[in-house]
Amino acid sequence: MADAKIRLFLEQPLGAGQPVPLTQEQAHYLFGVMRLGKGAGVLVFNGRDGEWRAEVAEAGKRGGLLVCAEQTAPLRVPPDLWLMFAPIKKARTDFIVEKAAEMGVRRILPVQTRFTNSERIRQDRLQAHAVEAAEQCGGTFVPEVCDLVALDRLLADWPAERRIMWCDENMLGARAGLLAGAGETEPRGFEEAPKSPSPGPWAVLIGPEGGFAEAEQARLRRMEQVVPVSLGPRILRADTAAVAALTLWQSVLGDWV
Amino acid sequence: MADAKIRLFLEQPLGAGQPVPLTQEQAHYLFGVMRLGKGAGVLVFNGRDGEWRAEVAEAGKRGGLLVCAEQTAPLRVPPDLWLMFAPIKKARTDFIVEKAAEMGVRRILPVQTRFTNSERIRQDRLQAHAVEAAEQCGGTFVPEVCDLVALDRLLADWPAERRIMWCDENMLGARAGLLAGAGETEPRGFEEAPKSPSPGPWAVLIGPEGGFAEAEQARLRRMEQVVPVSLGPRILRADTAAVAALTLWQSVLGDWV
Repeated sequence: MADAKIRLFLEQPLGAGQPVPLTQEQAHYLFGVMRLGKGAGVLVFNGRDGEWRAEVAEAGKRGGLLVCAEQTAPLRVPPDLWLMFAPIKKARTDFIVEKAAEMGVRRILPVQTRFTNSERIRQDRLQAHAVEAAEQCGGTFVPEVCDLVALDRLLADWPAERRIMWCDENMLGARAGLLAGAGETEPRGFEEAPKSPSPGPWAVLIGPEGGFAEAEQARLRRMEQVVPVSLGPRILRADTAAVAALTLWQSVLGDWV
Repeated sequence: MADAKIRLFLEQPLGAGQPVPLTQEQAHYLFGVMRLGKGAGVLVFNGRDGEWRAEVAEAGKRGGLLVCAEQTAPLRVPPDLWLMFAPIKKARTDFIVEKAAEMGVRRILPVQTRFTNSERIRQDRLQAHAVEAAEQCGGTFVPEVCDLVALDRLLADWPAERRIMWCDENMLGARAGLLAGAGETEPRGFEEAPKSPSPGPWAVLIGPEGGFAEAEQARLRRMEQVVPVSLGPRILRADTAAVAALTLWQSVLGDWV
């Protein structure tokens, strides 16, 4: 089999010897755009069965067939972490979704706050961005991108056990705040922190560029699940804050440890 | 004085009562583009004297005069941290410079590695990006963007006391690696780490998308200043890696503590 350099996300089941009939779109991409021929290798994943090396068995204009040869990577599911953010300008929203997929989150929730400008998002387009990011970064999992939801509504039904890392200004030191919120009553060394196998369900909340409204802040402060965390002494743009917050969470409580 | 919402970086000295003669370009921006008139307020900084609220004393087409009223923020110099990265596609290189300015570094060094595609950068354009990022994120300091330099040459003259956080795959856990490299012989808790006032001079090194060549890796491994650090189990794009690495450094050794 030729060296497989293309990584393709698809919905079909994958397994040893499993034939994978291709949709017209997939066939167009592999045979029309990427010019693969019969016998060529391709890496495929579906977010459930890990990554597989597959071989082109039939190549046509409107369809084709891959056959899975061997698993090249197991499914790696990220920790149970959600990212909530207020959509901003298109390019930066795309960026946040791409980065969240790279950094390892389970679910991406665009939220509408009082100071969020955008009233709608293209969920399908953002989901496609998450898929593309996973294809490019070697991921075997694709986070689910949800539709835009009002923060107020989301918080009204918030699960009791899911903690929220609220990235806010003028808070405790970055890691100390996160550790304290993770149940550490007094600052302990990181190496002693309750670092896994599972930190439990969490979400990271990034504010809109204009910050949260007074009422939103008050509500967040009242919620027991909320852990306010500082992202340093400088003001970060929302897209920077998203990557920084996910790094902090992953390196303190997640799978970067 | 009207509410000052515009933040402007300029080279002129700033101080109480200090008159600031404007260049033609600055006058064009303030009076032509932003339509400020006499008496209007503007926030100015020069990277040395903190942030000042100034008032328009004279407004002309080819020049004008501001007068500094009061200091609104002291100069905040970031820790002695450099960011070295291999330039990538234009938009992502711009992004790295913008993020580095937001996250707090002293100097930005684009480096040419064996697997770096670009042979040249527009230093002036990148420096302007750093200025713009500082203007927008409320910074009072602007990192210096250097010209492209070959990694080999840079490392040949590397200062003995400046440690390098080398972001590489298959390394120690993110923070454990950094702490160990910071002189911690055995893993200690973060709270006990030597966290300030100064961690000493450091640099963060982000590889090109294709990774480092064998010879480069061998050289880095031989250098005593080099501290290899993992950025988690997923492959990160260079721009994501830059923000993640700076977050890690700032939250463990820098001024986010």
